[in-house]
Amino acid sequence: MIRMRDLSLLTDFYQLTMAQGYCVKGKTEEAVFDLFYRENPCDNGYAVFAGLEQVIEFVENLEFKEEDIEYLRTQGFKERFLDYLRDFKFTGDIYSVPEGSVVFPKEPLLKVEAPILQAQLLETPLLNFINHQALIATKAARITEAAQGKSVLEFGLRRAHGPDAGVYGARAAVIGGCSGTSNVLTGKKFGVKVSGTHAHSWVMSFESELEAFRTYADNFPDSAILLVDTYDTLKSGVPNAIKVFKEMKDKGIDSELFGIRLDSGDLAYLSKEARKMLDQAGLEDAVIVASNNLDEDIISSLNLQGAQIDLYGVGTKLITSYDCPAFGAVYKMSEYNDQPKIKLSDNIEKMTDPGNKKLIRIYDQRSGEIRADLIALKDEVISADRDLVLFDARDTWKTTTLKKGNYQLREMMKPIFKTGKLVYDSPQVAEIKEYAEKEKESLGAEYKRLTNPHIMKVDLSDKLYELKQKLIKENKIEK
Amino acid sequence: MIRMRDLSLLTDFYQLTMAQGYCVKGKTEEAVFDLFYRENPCDNGYAVFAGLEQVIEFVENLEFKEEDIEYLRTQGFKERFLDYLRDFKFTGDIYSVPEGSVVFPKEPLLKVEAPILQAQLLETPLLNFINHQALIATKAARITEAAQGKSVLEFGLRRAHGPDAGVYGARAAVIGGCSGTSNVLTGKKFGVKVSGTHAHSWVMSFESELEAFRTYADNFPDSAILLVDTYDTLKSGVPNAIKVFKEMKDKGIDSELFGIRLDSGDLAYLSKEARKMLDQAGLEDAVIVASNNLDEDIISSLNLQGAQIDLYGVGTKLITSYDCPAFGAVYKMSEYNDQPKIKLSDNIEKMTDPGNKKLIRIYDQRSGEIRADLIALKDEVISADRDLVLFDARDTWKTTTLKKGNYQLREMMKPIFKTGKLVYDSPQVAEIKEYAEKEKESLGAEYKRLTNPHIMKVDLSDKLYELKQKLIKENKIEK
Repeated sequence: MIRMRDLSLLTDFYQLTMAQGYCVKGKTEEAVFDLFYRENPCDNGYAVFAGLEQVIEFVENLEFKEEDIEYLRTQGFKERFLDYLRDFKFTGDIYSVPEGSVVFPKEPLLKVEAPILQAQLLETPLLNFINHQALIATKAARITEAAQGKSVLEFGLRRAHGPDAGVYGARAAVIGGCSGTSNVLTGKKFGVKVSGTHAHSWVMSFESELEAFRTYADNFPDSAILLVDTYDTLKSGVPNAIKVFKEMKDKGIDSELFGIRLDSGDLAYLSKEARKMLDQAGLEDAVIVASNNLDEDIISSLNLQGAQIDLYGVGTKLITSYDCPAFGAVYKMSEYNDQPKIKLSDNIEKMTDPGNKKLIRIYDQRSGEIRADLIALKDEVISADRDLVLFDARDTWKTTTLKKGNYQLREMMKPIFKTGKLVYDSPQVAEIKEYAEKEKESLGAEYKRLTNPHIMKVDLSDKLYELKQKLIKENKIEK
Repeated sequence: MIRMRDLSLLTDFYQLTMAQGYCVKGKTEEAVFDLFYRENPCDNGYAVFAGLEQVIEFVENLEFKEEDIEYLRTQGFKERFLDYLRDFKFTGDIYSVPEGSVVFPKEPLLKVEAPILQAQLLETPLLNFINHQALIATKAARITEAAQGKSVLEFGLRRAHGPDAGVYGARAAVIGGCSGTSNVLTGKKFGVKVSGTHAHSWVMSFESELEAFRTYADNFPDSAILLVDTYDTLKSGVPNAIKVFKEMKDKGIDSELFGIRLDSGDLAYLSKEARKMLDQAGLEDAVIVASNNLDEDIISSLNLQGAQIDLYGVGTKLITSYDCPAFGAVYKMSEYNDQPKIKLSDNIEKMTDPGNKKLIRIYDQRSGEIRADLIALKDEVISADRDLVLFDARDTWKTTTLKKGNYQLREMMKPIFKTGKLVYDSPQVAEIKEYAEKEKESLGAEYKRLTNPHIMKVDLSDKLYELKQKLIKENKIEK
């Protein structure tokens, strides 16, 4: 284990071959790159942006140590380029939407303005951080939406793709909506709530389930959640748990949190039966926690069946975003040496939006809900003191007019680095989580629906639309 | 970014609450835990074991620093337990199959024998390392199997679940069969081959595609792979690449590796057309690299269509194991205080195998192929000097008799730690990869088929079978 963590070589080899090419060719012109994604994961109506704090840490720490240089020399890189890397420091600007923002496909979320070599070198690590955390934050938003106000805990470390996937995945899960995590390192690093109870092995290490429960409750009277399915949930686990809870009450212990955890079998049936048994024993305040391969679909189904579950523990399906384990953010050049650039494609969806841009969010004045997003050129003045006509970038005949006074504007990207200097304070995870909750509140219910949600309108300004058409014409190759 | 990497708190909170319970209760008895999995990912016929080196590093570095203790104090842990943690050191034994081994469901792959508190504390991190790397190694084995001898490069860092998922995922991909990776940090840490070319942005930063190609080939004459789909693959990219390759030949440059990369469109059609164009230009030695959302199914289909592809670059679908992004290894107690233990379940597949066990592989004497695996109790003598009757653990009427002299035995798990001391040298990744290739060669073709492979027989010894039946009866609760 390399205990000193040096991530500067966390990149694709071609970023370095290109960088050497730019260096040797003396190409120092400024480029602008946009980070954006094309489709919401799991067909959700939106995504939750996350990972910016790790981007900042990476950029702040980006330097090539002698051992990195030495390694690159063995890979055939030229001395002139290695000399350049030895003194490397990021000197450009970075703009980004804040973590926890609700975002939509095709809009710029993060923008890098820097000499092309520098901007290019950030591509892979930035995508790595954002693709991971935006994925898990979005999945967590779906799962907590399904839980309809019940708490969801992240329990997936053992199935995460290595330590970082566990630690930063839990961070993103909390940003996306989870109340806490079982991951102790995430708790320590980010100050988020950690929780957990015991495993089957605890029960198996005692002569009897009853003794195991009693010992656990003695040790943790304020979070005595007993796992009841080691032998038989309703015949053994729940009766033994009830016995122990009654003993606690008899001893006058007023527990903050106590109850049972179901981890196998028919959770709808078992939770209803267990609820009855607990209630009949006068333990209305005992909670029922459920885990075992849960995701948003199973939680929705449990709700529909009237399952009596107070708290969900979600592991594999959240920490891997099981049914959609990649967030497809890409990083594309939109300007080079002050010239707007476009990447063409046979598929119009894959064409990029040229030019140095900004992202403006349009809110309905009365409801406070998001009405649409508008991508405009950086220097365009977009003001709310006139009627605003929105049109669909693809089906341009679809237009909507927003009357002056009925809408509000908000510029979404904030400066993070200016000429290489960090100008942004990353909020604590708890603040980001709170901001994300407000962001989700600003979305109409139809955009949060888990299946077939409304698609948020993401408009191009007239000027940007015209620029794009012009560049498509100029760059077109006859088929 | 915490640059000093301390992973000791990389665990589920409940491991620590249980540990405190064991500590306070004074439970110091030895326990045995097995790490095993229940189903092959992607319905493969086997899995490739990986991640042991990271397990070793974790155990070697496992200690609780003052800042960990301080954090746990804020979480309500007792001083007596914190004192214990302050002096914590792993003192037990660990046995494991070597990395790169071909393995099958339900057999013990790694075994921990230690005082229960210590053994329990290893659960989450060990599962995290193994679940991640065995998953990616197995997916890489499937993808390289589909490539039928053509090289496969791992290109997925930008879509990996954070830095570790990229770095260790690429390590596992190479163990599973990839020839190299684009991930520079993996190259540096593990000495594996790194490679890559250039992106669309390289082309877009030049006045013309031709100039971009020429500059790239000038800089990297020995790995001049030109990306030909920025504008139009067959009308612009391939003709420009041919022009540059001819210029190279005219200059007398004898390139080690040159060719084109296709990254969009119909790869079967484009590769065949490009091959014709290259051949007609006398560039039979130019290679064609293909990338763009490849996986084992698309590669198989490209092969069937006679696509002219020499080298595959595989990203998202490999580094996330997209269609099956979790490896379900679990860690279950099989013995406590010298008593064999079983975890019952309504589902017979989920019952554990009790007792301290070993894993023996049975090879066909003539072909050298794996015939079956046998799980036996640790102290059983299994020798090859008699006929061996294999029976199916579930369908016990299915038996096979192997005649003495027709089979060979091999004990799969090696000692890794003995009384806390490391007694095993982790091989280099290149050696592990070579071993994994041999392991795959010892599997019959029908086990390596991508769809509906044969299921390897994993037998229980008579003694283990009897023990299991006895414990099921003893622990059964009447329904």
